[in-house]
Amino acid sequence: MTKAKPLQKKDDTRDKVLRSITKFAETLIKSIERGEFPEVAIPARTTSNIEYNPQLRQYVLGERKIVRTARNIKHLRPLAQLSWMAMFASQLIRSRKTSTLRDAFYNALGYEVDFEDQQESDEAVTELETIIGTVREDFNIYPEERSSVFGPLTIEYDVPGYEGRRLDLTTIPDGAMIGPAMTTAKFVKTSAKQVFVVEKGAIYQRFLEENVPSKYKAIVVHTAGQAPRATRKFIRRLNTELGLPVYIFTDADPWGMHIASVIVFGSALSAHVRELNVPDAVWAGLWASDITKYKLPAMKFNDEDIRRVAELEKDPRYLSDPWKREISNFKKLQKKAELEALSRYGLEYIVSDYLPEKLAELTKS
Amino acid sequence: MTKAKPLQKKDDTRDKVLRSITKFAETLIKSIERGEFPEVAIPARTTSNIEYNPQLRQYVLGERKIVRTARNIKHLRPLAQLSWMAMFASQLIRSRKTSTLRDAFYNALGYEVDFEDQQESDEAVTELETIIGTVREDFNIYPEERSSVFGPLTIEYDVPGYEGRRLDLTTIPDGAMIGPAMTTAKFVKTSAKQVFVVEKGAIYQRFLEENVPSKYKAIVVHTAGQAPRATRKFIRRLNTELGLPVYIFTDADPWGMHIASVIVFGSALSAHVRELNVPDAVWAGLWASDITKYKLPAMKFNDEDIRRVAELEKDPRYLSDPWKREISNFKKLQKKAELEALSRYGLEYIVSDYLPEKLAELTKS
Repeated sequence: MTKAKPLQKKDDTRDKVLRSITKFAETLIKSIERGEFPEVAIPARTTSNIEYNPQLRQYVLGERKIVRTARNIKHLRPLAQLSWMAMFASQLIRSRKTSTLRDAFYNALGYEVDFEDQQESDEAVTELETIIGTVREDFNIYPEERSSVFGPLTIEYDVPGYEGRRLDLTTIPDGAMIGPAMTTAKFVKTSAKQVFVVEKGAIYQRFLEENVPSKYKAIVVHTAGQAPRATRKFIRRLNTELGLPVYIFTDADPWGMHIASVIVFGSALSAHVRELNVPDAVWAGLWASDITKYKLPAMKFNDEDIRRVAELEKDPRYLSDPWKREISNFKKLQKKAELEALSRYGLEYIVSDYLPEKLAELTKS
Repeated sequence: MTKAKPLQKKDDTRDKVLRSITKFAETLIKSIERGEFPEVAIPARTTSNIEYNPQLRQYVLGERKIVRTARNIKHLRPLAQLSWMAMFASQLIRSRKTSTLRDAFYNALGYEVDFEDQQESDEAVTELETIIGTVREDFNIYPEERSSVFGPLTIEYDVPGYEGRRLDLTTIPDGAMIGPAMTTAKFVKTSAKQVFVVEKGAIYQRFLEENVPSKYKAIVVHTAGQAPRATRKFIRRLNTELGLPVYIFTDADPWGMHIASVIVFGSALSAHVRELNVPDAVWAGLWASDITKYKLPAMKFNDEDIRRVAELEKDPRYLSDPWKREISNFKKLQKKAELEALSRYGLEYIVSDYLPEKLAELTKS
């Protein structure tokens, strides 16, 4: 577990990103002024250049780079697209507005920047991420999905019209959405001792209704399936800025296990950006072994599940426990169960029995 | 448009539902005490018994009923399941806890109530809705999906631990989730003159960032696709309790049009419950005709779209304008466009130009 640090002020992400974009633009302009073809070197995101880094405990890009140069007529189009996207990003940051991938695509049409389809404009966004080394949320391009959070934490907003305004997250009984305003807020006060991340809305609601946040001094985050990147970054901040241990609860199936591992180790698709994952986060369950231990109603693995477990077995992120052990348990059991399955012992059981038993087990080892 | 009424106190839904459940249980018990086989008459939900009622402007069930009687051995199982579900619902209401369909299914296992699968337990929930004539949210079974809301409205919570606590919705810049606490809150104060309902998260965020709530004195609701029933009920309350006109903004395609029409007229699947729809709500766009008028980047209809428009053309909900007119426009155009397509004129365009033009057009006619 990381040590508790004093609550930090939010870093000046906006300025850093703006400086990176300006630097990129200056490189292009200076080449043109010198009468040279502008070019840019971008870390390659091909599979062969994605490697799992055990020290950093996340996927990263290797040393290989591709060079986009205006000298090559085939490169002109992606280079122009990338430049436009950099301009769009800098406009978003300066005007303090947000956008989505879809919005960015349509906006380009107004500039007569020629994107064949959204896939092509998404690619330009990813290239920009690669150059800047940060996620698109840092240049204000957000996903539509929203996770939510509840618990003993007071935040201070930093979006236009709300600067300096505070919110005690326990005052919103349905939980607060992790949108652009939450993502960029400072953490100013907390009495939390830990963070519980849950995949399922039903379990999130259960935790709130059974007063888990006050009983366990816990901040509870609902990912709503695979955690959006803004949410992963938010969880990381809870861990690093507040020094809180993070426990992740998912369904006992290969998909739930993967939701947990992406939070812990990052995803291959995000190998070009850093500081999205939470290496110290702990996958707390449901494990395959919990299906047996708690006699949970379980479903037989289908072909997809079997294929997926075989795939994960080869993944470098799953070489240590609990991952390795539970993959082996899944293979023996050939069954899966949902978090809600604990409701067979009553709605409260997951909080009154399962949670304390699991935490005791995890902190013992 | 409905006339403005003074802000009402929330009705005693809890008590009403509990009385209905108790009445249902008493009927069963009295039969048993008289030595008779208990039975219950349930409005039939078969397609032939679902009809569109032009006066009520929603789908309703016809006169046909089915009788579940313990005299028939085939009926014993569903009757027992229905009785258990009624008990579960009454427990939820009394303990003021919420559940999901999935949770209800697993909970039944603990009572050794034999549901083959979740489909069977969902069916018992729907039967209970049919008997009580209200939606499952009223007996605390909620969906996982969450819509959200932002605007000049102050609510007062009515959930355990939050009774009497108020929230000014403009204090949460990301918008507040329409979860169980929001759904059951009283409306205590508003300066809103209208409600804007939007299908897309990107547009919701745009409306918030461009200060639509203050510029237009509007409460903005994000449905996130097809509006969950709790959200439809929430929009209805904004319309009937606060007397606010409701404008719905969707993509210009048969699916967006249907999202709007379900809010206005209700869905065939919900024909067994009342007071979910908002007959006075107005579908404000994007219309097929907007694609031409605003020269929007559009995509060709695929086979699914063509089939869907043909289906909707026969639907009794689409016999009046703007529905009828726009179905005819879609058929001529054979194209669709998304709300974000307006971004081709800049991110602000939808608020600075499209919105005022559309509202002027709608209030003129």
